[in-house]
Amino acid sequence: MTSDLKSRIISRVTDDLEKIESALEANLKPNLALVKEIASHLLFSGGKRLRPLLMVHSARMCGYNSGFEIEFSTIFEFLHAATLLHDDVVDEADVRRGKAAAHTKWAAPKVVLTGDFLLATALDIAARTQSPEIILVIANITGQMSQGEIDQLEKRGQTTLSEAQYLTVIERKTAVLIQGACQSGAILAKASQEKRSALKDYGFHLGVAFQMADDLLDYMATADELGKNPGADLREGKLTLPLIVALENADEKDRSWMIDQIRDKGFNTKSFEHLKEMLYKYKGIEYTSKQAQYHVHQAKECLDVFKDSPSRELLQMLADYAVERRV
Amino acid sequence: MTSDLKSRIISRVTDDLEKIESALEANLKPNLALVKEIASHLLFSGGKRLRPLLMVHSARMCGYNSGFEIEFSTIFEFLHAATLLHDDVVDEADVRRGKAAAHTKWAAPKVVLTGDFLLATALDIAARTQSPEIILVIANITGQMSQGEIDQLEKRGQTTLSEAQYLTVIERKTAVLIQGACQSGAILAKASQEKRSALKDYGFHLGVAFQMADDLLDYMATADELGKNPGADLREGKLTLPLIVALENADEKDRSWMIDQIRDKGFNTKSFEHLKEMLYKYKGIEYTSKQAQYHVHQAKECLDVFKDSPSRELLQMLADYAVERRV
Repeated sequence: MTSDLKSRIISRVTDDLEKIESALEANLKPNLALVKEIASHLLFSGGKRLRPLLMVHSARMCGYNSGFEIEFSTIFEFLHAATLLHDDVVDEADVRRGKAAAHTKWAAPKVVLTGDFLLATALDIAARTQSPEIILVIANITGQMSQGEIDQLEKRGQTTLSEAQYLTVIERKTAVLIQGACQSGAILAKASQEKRSALKDYGFHLGVAFQMADDLLDYMATADELGKNPGADLREGKLTLPLIVALENADEKDRSWMIDQIRDKGFNTKSFEHLKEMLYKYKGIEYTSKQAQYHVHQAKECLDVFKDSPSRELLQMLADYAVERRV
Repeated sequence: MTSDLKSRIISRVTDDLEKIESALEANLKPNLALVKEIASHLLFSGGKRLRPLLMVHSARMCGYNSGFEIEFSTIFEFLHAATLLHDDVVDEADVRRGKAAAHTKWAAPKVVLTGDFLLATALDIAARTQSPEIILVIANITGQMSQGEIDQLEKRGQTTLSEAQYLTVIERKTAVLIQGACQSGAILAKASQEKRSALKDYGFHLGVAFQMADDLLDYMATADELGKNPGADLREGKLTLPLIVALENADEKDRSWMIDQIRDKGFNTKSFEHLKEMLYKYKGIEYTSKQAQYHVHQAKECLDVFKDSPSRELLQMLADYAVERRV
């Protein structure tokens, strides 16, 4: 089922993906070999290019198809890669996209500065659009994301987090970038305010759903599927919705056991499996899945103001895929 | 002499400095208290506001005086602060502007992310100018600076560095930002290409002179004057021009002793004093001072295309001050 949706999506975007890859290569122009090496390590390690695809098809759904949308879309992959590089340092995760995280191969400062370089690259392409509105969107994305990451960092190891606080964190760290990609597509296409606003909302709901699905996968997928070890959030002291809900619903004894697991960074496979059972038992998985589905539904509803087109169909499929995917 | 120049400059910019301080406060709008705290720690710890002043008076010398130049000028202080935050993490320096470096008070990741936030703030103000040309200048600054820092990092601990390599490093890490501030002033004022180009060159030479003076001060000033311990460059394995020249001119025995000092991170006050004597003996200090003076001279010559005005006088004084200052 899922892999069927995935292959349908891929068959529709094969050409775009090829062009996006070439545009990423062409626009990465560091003066230093080391910057290219670090940037390439992450950029060309099999990302899904979700953000560029969303941008390209948001623009096309609004009638834009000059071809520049491909180059423009790389902004969102460069921004994404920049934040991943800074996050890798922050999270101290060892594996990313199935490869060693950049900071395990290079000293953290070099990784930070390469992130800065990718941010500058994104900015440079944005400036070439000559659209101050787009620059403002990108400035806002960068500001929100940095604050979202600090917020998450501050909350690390907390054993209580409300659903509202969780939502604020994932909005900032994930949804604003996906939202910005969709919104920028509409701006680039000089779409009406109604359509800009519809794509902004579509991107927001898709981004929230996408992150919730990610947080579910961190408990439910295998290491092979994830390209990194499951349970990373828990090991890093990040409370996500499945666990937040389970903690709320659990009886005293189980809640206290779960809190012990959050605090115990050396916890093992067996206790992780037991924790997963708790997440099912106390409806953490079920509730998070339903919330993610709700946001997918909301996202798709936002597309109602557009007339039918191949890009609109693709954006509908991408919304479904955000929660159906296994990686 | 120096302090006389300083007080003459200050008497001319008191009003501007007050307005710049208010604009920095007003434009720093984080959602998180912690971001504000980290950003304020650095931003309001007594910087000279050289970059905003250069921007403001470049614009005014080109006839601009809508008042927006003050808010606009904060871009260059925010950018500067963002890079200082990232550099502090990179350099692992403990003291900055006489205060504890941010990363000694907060974990490095928070400092990195606050740097990102300040970058976003700069970008946001730049976008409000609606000038794609300015955005391109800023994107270029960010890209060059990140590469300059990596380049410097790569060269750490090297005991040979050519003057040309040194120049490339300081151009990127210091001159491009100062150059960008001056150039943006001309762009904001919609000045002629001739004037834009003159201010770009002025900024470049001033930036190079400023960094050379900084590199001299790191050997010659006291801890009180610097707001940090002298000899920081040597301790961090950074070869700067005074030492590069001395190494070239030294006899075999002294060169070999100096190389030992570069490699020996635990070297003491006595050996530092002896090293300084070598820098004098082998003309490292003299040559660097002359080069700095040469760039100040070049910078001032660039101002010839402008007719006399208070802003032009100030830019001349700032050029002199770049090398005469003790801090």
